[in-house]
Amino acid sequence: MATDTNLSTQGYRGTRDLYPAEMRNRNYIYEKLRRTLRTFGYEEYEGPLVEPFELYAAKSSAEIVSDQLYHMVDRGDRRIAIRPEMTPTLARMVAAKFHEIPRPIRWYSIPTCMRYERPQRGRLREFDQLNVDLFGGLPIDEDAEVLLLSSDLLLGLGALHNQFEIRVNHRGLINSFLYQELEISPTLKSELLRLLDKRDKMTSTEFNTSGQSLGLSSAQLLRLEAFLIAPIQDLKQHFLNPNTDLNGLTHLTEVFNALSGVIPSEVLVFDASVMRGFDYYTGMVFEVYDTDPTNRRALFGGGRYDNLVAAFGGDTLAGVGFGAGDVGLTLFCETHKLIPTITKGTDICVIRFSEVDRASSLALAQQLRQWGYNVETPISSQKFGKQIQAATKIGAKAVAFIGQENQLDGTFTIKFLDSENQVSIKNAKSSESEFLLLWQKECSLENGSEIQS
Amino acid sequence: MATDTNLSTQGYRGTRDLYPAEMRNRNYIYEKLRRTLRTFGYEEYEGPLVEPFELYAAKSSAEIVSDQLYHMVDRGDRRIAIRPEMTPTLARMVAAKFHEIPRPIRWYSIPTCMRYERPQRGRLREFDQLNVDLFGGLPIDEDAEVLLLSSDLLLGLGALHNQFEIRVNHRGLINSFLYQELEISPTLKSELLRLLDKRDKMTSTEFNTSGQSLGLSSAQLLRLEAFLIAPIQDLKQHFLNPNTDLNGLTHLTEVFNALSGVIPSEVLVFDASVMRGFDYYTGMVFEVYDTDPTNRRALFGGGRYDNLVAAFGGDTLAGVGFGAGDVGLTLFCETHKLIPTITKGTDICVIRFSEVDRASSLALAQQLRQWGYNVETPISSQKFGKQIQAATKIGAKAVAFIGQENQLDGTFTIKFLDSENQVSIKNAKSSESEFLLLWQKECSLENGSEIQS
Repeated sequence: MATDTNLSTQGYRGTRDLYPAEMRNRNYIYEKLRRTLRTFGYEEYEGPLVEPFELYAAKSSAEIVSDQLYHMVDRGDRRIAIRPEMTPTLARMVAAKFHEIPRPIRWYSIPTCMRYERPQRGRLREFDQLNVDLFGGLPIDEDAEVLLLSSDLLLGLGALHNQFEIRVNHRGLINSFLYQELEISPTLKSELLRLLDKRDKMTSTEFNTSGQSLGLSSAQLLRLEAFLIAPIQDLKQHFLNPNTDLNGLTHLTEVFNALSGVIPSEVLVFDASVMRGFDYYTGMVFEVYDTDPTNRRALFGGGRYDNLVAAFGGDTLAGVGFGAGDVGLTLFCETHKLIPTITKGTDICVIRFSEVDRASSLALAQQLRQWGYNVETPISSQKFGKQIQAATKIGAKAVAFIGQENQLDGTFTIKFLDSENQVSIKNAKSSESEFLLLWQKECSLENGSEIQS
Repeated sequence: MATDTNLSTQGYRGTRDLYPAEMRNRNYIYEKLRRTLRTFGYEEYEGPLVEPFELYAAKSSAEIVSDQLYHMVDRGDRRIAIRPEMTPTLARMVAAKFHEIPRPIRWYSIPTCMRYERPQRGRLREFDQLNVDLFGGLPIDEDAEVLLLSSDLLLGLGALHNQFEIRVNHRGLINSFLYQELEISPTLKSELLRLLDKRDKMTSTEFNTSGQSLGLSSAQLLRLEAFLIAPIQDLKQHFLNPNTDLNGLTHLTEVFNALSGVIPSEVLVFDASVMRGFDYYTGMVFEVYDTDPTNRRALFGGGRYDNLVAAFGGDTLAGVGFGAGDVGLTLFCETHKLIPTITKGTDICVIRFSEVDRASSLALAQQLRQWGYNVETPISSQKFGKQIQAATKIGAKAVAFIGQENQLDGTFTIKFLDSENQVSIKNAKSSESEFLLLWQKECSLENGSEIQS
């Protein structure tokens, strides 16, 4: 295999190499997310890395299908694509066992996905995306739960309430205000939504000029601007026409009321500019933002849809869901310094005087592992002192060895690297509790490994 | 999005849908594997789902590259492929930071890979493969450690020693015996290795006939057969020529000696028929087999290679590694019934009398979650009794609610579903320890959730 080629060590653009240090951080984040999801009763699922092309053609956005999909034809002439998102797979899996899956469905997954995009800060071609979905219940309860869960996922990562903001909107509410209350022509729908979507980045004058060029009157623009910045509890007074459909407002108000005791009102805010893809969602939509000025980005986004399993036949399943990319979540954790320093976690290095001690070192290491410690054994012929140095370097708390004196009385020696205390212990299964007491005395519990669990 | 198409709910052939029940089992297996790997000091890494095609062309076997690779051309005209195996990525990542990565390198990964193969029992097109590699030490120590780790990974899953067998061979030892001791012509190499590889499935007569047709004498075949079935400690007496290179035998004997105290000799056996890909490996090779007659298959396979980073420039790194597919490991666990029944893990269902109680139910649920319990909240308008039934069905241990009497004195009620005991507790943060005592009394600890940890 020793060819003479000189291959590049660079991976494909927009993908990542996760070396152990980065992987430890990622596992830390995922474990915290999974833990929070368990406390809400959500269960993990997984689907295939690739799906038939037709699944995405039917279920994904036109932009994804035409511009971002990694697809190919297999050797049996089937067109398949690497998943650009999880929802089509979720829909297929739910549709396949529609009548067997117990309700409510509380599911999550952390799939790796790929989209052909220009890589930039916070966006790669290959990414993981936490997908959370809830089906089979009352919309008010479901929407409230998913917002609360979004908040708890960040709190579970160690964030404080002032480090993020949940911006909520409702498609029905916006539609009522625009088309019934202001009586704007529905033919302006897409231009108007685009305008609202961009409002964040415009001055008031720019917004007014753009609005007027769409044919909105000054009066309409004035009322629109006031509506867009109103807090949820004041929204009602912006509706003057008694015939306007207020279902969206009622719904959102009930969702906010349900959450009043569990999410501070500064964190959960109404934001009429949250749009989340114009066609897909039908009810509540929301985005969770990092409030740090250096990292203002949407961390999660999601909303309510009428029917997950449309396109698979006659069944209907309404629900609510959201996605959160791992790249954004990691930037959030880094911005707010939420990830502690995580070490390799080796407790003990067994060391030896010579290669002759191979079998006894391995047996000692196995004994310590059976007691629950993480143990590395020597694989070099380094001198004793060098082996101790190496153990210190990887962060081990102690070294263990069988010296000449130990051989005489059937013991082994444990030497703690911080205190330099050194104790001989009978090399036998029965020494477990004696060893544990010693360990607890020498190594403070919070630094400890899995021994306590 | 409500198109009229009637999409198939079938995924792409050879891929899997992991519903929550299957995912729980998979997570259980992976968590046990990870735990064992940590006790040996191995660290997890991850690489990209896709790599440049050239990486596989240079590093993977011809069979994989020409017949099994899922590859495509991206929109920037770069040829990429879904990873069929992890070693090329590992080699690239190690080569990229060759001088920064501390030695020894103890790394593992559980990548999802794809190969275009005919799906059958124990083999899918999409699979996960535990990859374990060790570099930077003495070959005897490394080989011994990896064999011990293989054994411990299965013991860590709950297997007994008699449920698997580790079959070890050494390419140098076989070569010495064939070409130096028996003086068979090296031109017969590939035919001979194929013959040895198939010996397991042949009668002694068939083996002799095939051997003779390759031009081996009866004397050579007699010695060969005797050698192939000899236990490791008898191998030496089969070498009569004082000039034969016995390094391979010496190496393997030392590895077996090192492991004599930690793996029973019935489990760790010499097997001259283990070949593991003719070109790749240079020293020890091994396979771990399930001994159950209904599931005789290789669970792990691996060996020693001279240089991982060949093809990336001038550096050299020798080591040893192995791979274990999740499909085979899962079949092993199923065959030996090693996976316990794992429930969803919900501790408490909060229930409510009407939708009016939404906010107080959510607040109660949050309180219980902050105390560490897994809690589901109602998202339906079901009657009280139905809600209790639903809680029982998902395996919750208790229901909690705020009844009318609770409202009067600021308490909530917890009702344990097994004992039907029901207690009122002050609805306040300060009740945590009172609640915990009650919980421990009612729910036996081994069934408990994460509360104890």
